[in-house]
Amino acid sequence: MTRRPNTWRVIAEERSISMRAEDQAQRLPKIVQAVVESYNRIGTINHLRPCPLPSTEEVIAITEDLKEVLYPGYRRRQNLHRQNVTYYVGDLLDSVCERLTQQIARALRHEAERDVDTPCQNTSPEDFLDLASEKTLAFLDRLPEIRRLLATDVQAAYDGDPAAKSTDEVIFCYPGLEAITVHRLAHELYRLNVPLIPRIMSERTHSRTGIDIHPGARIGASFFIDHGTGVVIGETCEIADNVKIYQGVTLGAVSFPKDEQGRIIRGQKRHPTIEENVVIYANATILGGQTVIGANSVIGASVSLMNESVPPGTVVTVEKPKLRFRESAKPKTA
Amino acid sequence: MTRRPNTWRVIAEERSISMRAEDQAQRLPKIVQAVVESYNRIGTINHLRPCPLPSTEEVIAITEDLKEVLYPGYRRRQNLHRQNVTYYVGDLLDSVCERLTQQIARALRHEAERDVDTPCQNTSPEDFLDLASEKTLAFLDRLPEIRRLLATDVQAAYDGDPAAKSTDEVIFCYPGLEAITVHRLAHELYRLNVPLIPRIMSERTHSRTGIDIHPGARIGASFFIDHGTGVVIGETCEIADNVKIYQGVTLGAVSFPKDEQGRIIRGQKRHPTIEENVVIYANATILGGQTVIGANSVIGASVSLMNESVPPGTVVTVEKPKLRFRESAKPKTA
Amino acid sequence: MTRRPNTWRVIAEERSISMRAEDQAQRLPKIVQAVVESYNRIGTINHLRPCPLPSTEEVIAITEDLKEVLYPGYRRRQNLHRQNVTYYVGDLLDSVCERLTQQIARALRHEAERDVDTPCQNTSPEDFLDLASEKTLAFLDRLPEIRRLLATDVQAAYDGDPAAKSTDEVIFCYPGLEAITVHRLAHELYRLNVPLIPRIMSERTHSRTGIDIHPGARIGASFFIDHGTGVVIGETCEIADNVKIYQGVTLGAVSFPKDEQGRIIRGQKRHPTIEENVVIYANATILGGQTVIGANSVIGASVSLMNESVPPGTVVTVEKPKLRFRESAKPKTA
Repeated sequence: MTRRPNTWRVIAEERSISMRAEDQAQRLPKIVQAVVESYNRIGTINHLRPCPLPSTEEVIAITEDLKEVLYPGYRRRQNLHRQNVTYYVGDLLDSVCERLTQQIARALRHEAERDVDTPCQNTSPEDFLDLASEKTLAFLDRLPEIRRLLATDVQAAYDGDPAAKSTDEVIFCYPGLEAITVHRLAHELYRLNVPLIPRIMSERTHSRTGIDIHPGARIGASFFIDHGTGVVIGETCEIADNVKIYQGVTLGAVSFPKDEQGRIIRGQKRHPTIEENVVIYANATILGGQTVIGANSVIGASVSLMNESVPPGTVVTVEKPKLRFRESAKPKTA
Repeated sequence: MTRRPNTWRVIAEERSISMRAEDQAQRLPKIVQAVVESYNRIGTINHLRPCPLPSTEEVIAITEDLKEVLYPGYRRRQNLHRQNVTYYVGDLLDSVCERLTQQIARALRHEAERDVDTPCQNTSPEDFLDLASEKTLAFLDRLPEIRRLLATDVQAAYDGDPAAKSTDEVIFCYPGLEAITVHRLAHELYRLNVPLIPRIMSERTHSRTGIDIHPGARIGASFFIDHGTGVVIGETCEIADNVKIYQGVTLGAVSFPKDEQGRIIRGQKRHPTIEENVVIYANATILGGQTVIGANSVIGASVSLMNESVPPGTVVTVEKPKLRFRESAKPKTA
Repeated sequence: MTRRPNTWRVIAEERSISMRAEDQAQRLPKIVQAVVESYNRIGTINHLRPCPLPSTEEVIAITEDLKEVLYPGYRRRQNLHRQNVTYYVGDLLDSVCERLTQQIARALRHEAERDVDTPCQNTSPEDFLDLASEKTLAFLDRLPEIRRLLATDVQAAYDGDPAAKSTDEVIFCYPGLEAITVHRLAHELYRLNVPLIPRIMSERTHSRTGIDIHPGARIGASFFIDHGTGVVIGETCEIADNVKIYQGVTLGAVSFPKDEQGRIIRGQKRHPTIEENVVIYANATILGGQTVIGANSVIGASVSLMNESVPPGTVVTVEKPKLRFRESAKPKTA
């Protein structure tokens, strides 16, 4: 190739760059203006106010620190022992206490200012710090009890899964344990009427594990979710001790009663009650706030129960589907 | 313990280290050579060519910036208000414009060079920048319209879920909203015939939410996916306004017609059409390009419709399975 | 507003801060003490011992490096070519070799010390390095064979999905490919009796893709999982060449035989065998260690087979459910 075409190419390119830059320089400001105008026109999905919201990232970081407190030695810090663990955990909890207080104060203020006429002008962030501090301490008080429950969950996972080689493997790897761990934390915050933050915690875990437990669900000891992807446990579920659930199981709501204006009525029991020692196999769907699965029952894979209770000590399976066996048209070979 | 065993131990260890190092030093180069040779022998899964591909990380970073533009004040930056938001969003969009142009240019070049005899020698990266810039600006032009649609989606989620305490909670936490947000972005790029990048965006969201919407799917306003894990919406789906879908729902294809050489024919309508005001409950499977779910219909949990349409205004549920209730062998107690 | 109220406010705030600080200063040490005491009382879920465990983060980083070796040019590093790729991959493998040896040594020591009376006092970390090095090299030796298999998987995905525009798109985006890639790595470590690490790898991929393949599963060439969320493939599955699986499919166990003490017996074949050229559609559940799906069979969506085999060349679908069509009470319009 001679040099000339290259030169030409460079010149052509430079012209192209300059035209492109000009084009963008002309059009981009109009785009920005249109987007900003849409913040006025469609104001329900922007938050342009001086009430800072809880930070998702900070809530997630706090949750990770709490996991470290619950299961010391497994995750971040190695070589902990009886002596140094107090320093390590004390420092972590001191930091969690401060940061969680800030986040809870933001969530409380957001709720207080949400539906008023002139939001974010009635209160200052400091107005909510005392209450937030009180809730944070009440929450941290519950950590030993949470550990007691989680130890039963770890044992239930080991006892219930032949693929588990040790309880350490459960703590290291099992998504079901991660889900119940974060749920037990989020549920305490939910009980303390902390807005937004419990749901941010549970949705993060939903993203990581595919297990969606609403922070409101009440779950007993020795709970085990195996595999877990697709599990949904609704806000008003009640689950007794020693229950085992497989992937894809939904404990959900059927339909939502509406008030006279056609708005959904919130706050009723919409999700099932599961009594102790129940096993629910993959992809079973159990719906309805009045549905009760009696103790010691087994619900088979793909069973669907809508507003239908089951007495204690029964085994429920779908009628074996009539399968059509026919020779396949032709084997799929290349 | 006397000192001698320690000394012996150290000596034994040093010998072991040196033998180990020698062993690795001998065997590792052969392993490297074998791996590199496999790049020649099995060349279909390596890209050893001077055409840089789009960067997954950069595409994800751009997507996150766009979410910030769509929902200012909720995520990264706090204390935005009517005055400073123009600076913030203007700066973000300027950066997105430049980076997205680069990524689209790479994707266009990759497509142009993919099936030629001497790939990556026919074009330079600059050859595609003008077209990429044009597509980027056309895409950004759509942002206000995307915001308009997303505001209807947020409202639909709030109206459709009694567990939602506020629309802010929806924007903060709901995986279904994240999925439709990224889908509406990816779909615009898909319509502009941008290769690879829309799919990288949607698969990232699939990973985070368990919701797999192909960028090609056409979805109307006020769309709500609740819980969402396991939802699959295929490339040629058409979904009208005000549709609500629960976890595990598949809107998929049945089988794929093949050409005379036995290769799959691409580009036909393979996925269902869902008309307005339809609700589809958990784990329902609706398959086939000719399948139409008529307006105002309700599809029950676990219903399976294969190449079978449903007239408007109907409720479809599976026949209640005959459940076998029998006393369980013995209660599962320790 | 006059200055006085502000002054008052500041004073009130300062008093509040100091009371809050005092309150926290009093209560936090008690919380820390209670948590630390629970490490003694509930000692099964803390690891306060000088045996460092494998690091989840390091195992994930090693896995990412190995993906870069398997598919050079697609992910992190651009502009690789035949000449520089040896340097790049050689450097990566050298680093992987060293780090993986360390992690495997930790896992081996953990297993050796797990059930002894005085854990972590019988061995030193160095005791396991030679064996770990041997296992690491044996593992790395398998990389070319793993690449050979993965090339067949990429082709199977392209051939089996009309939405795939190129094999590059499969390598870039397909969660099913990510799952089989990490599985083929983890399975080699499983075969080498490396504890913990294969499961850490597979659970990380489960989190990212919703696809849960136990490292023990034996899977042939040309394997394709489409969409994939909710797929579960158990430890003792055997899957022949050219099998295609859709989202939500479970290849699982039915129930677990227990020994005389009521403990689950581990190590038996509990999961199905799938012969070559089988296709299994969405949400099908196939359970039982004696269940065999014969070659060239097709299993339809939502089919449930429990301890029931299928002869070669058959198509299995659920009996078409009797659907109840009734006019919906009233269309759901606002």
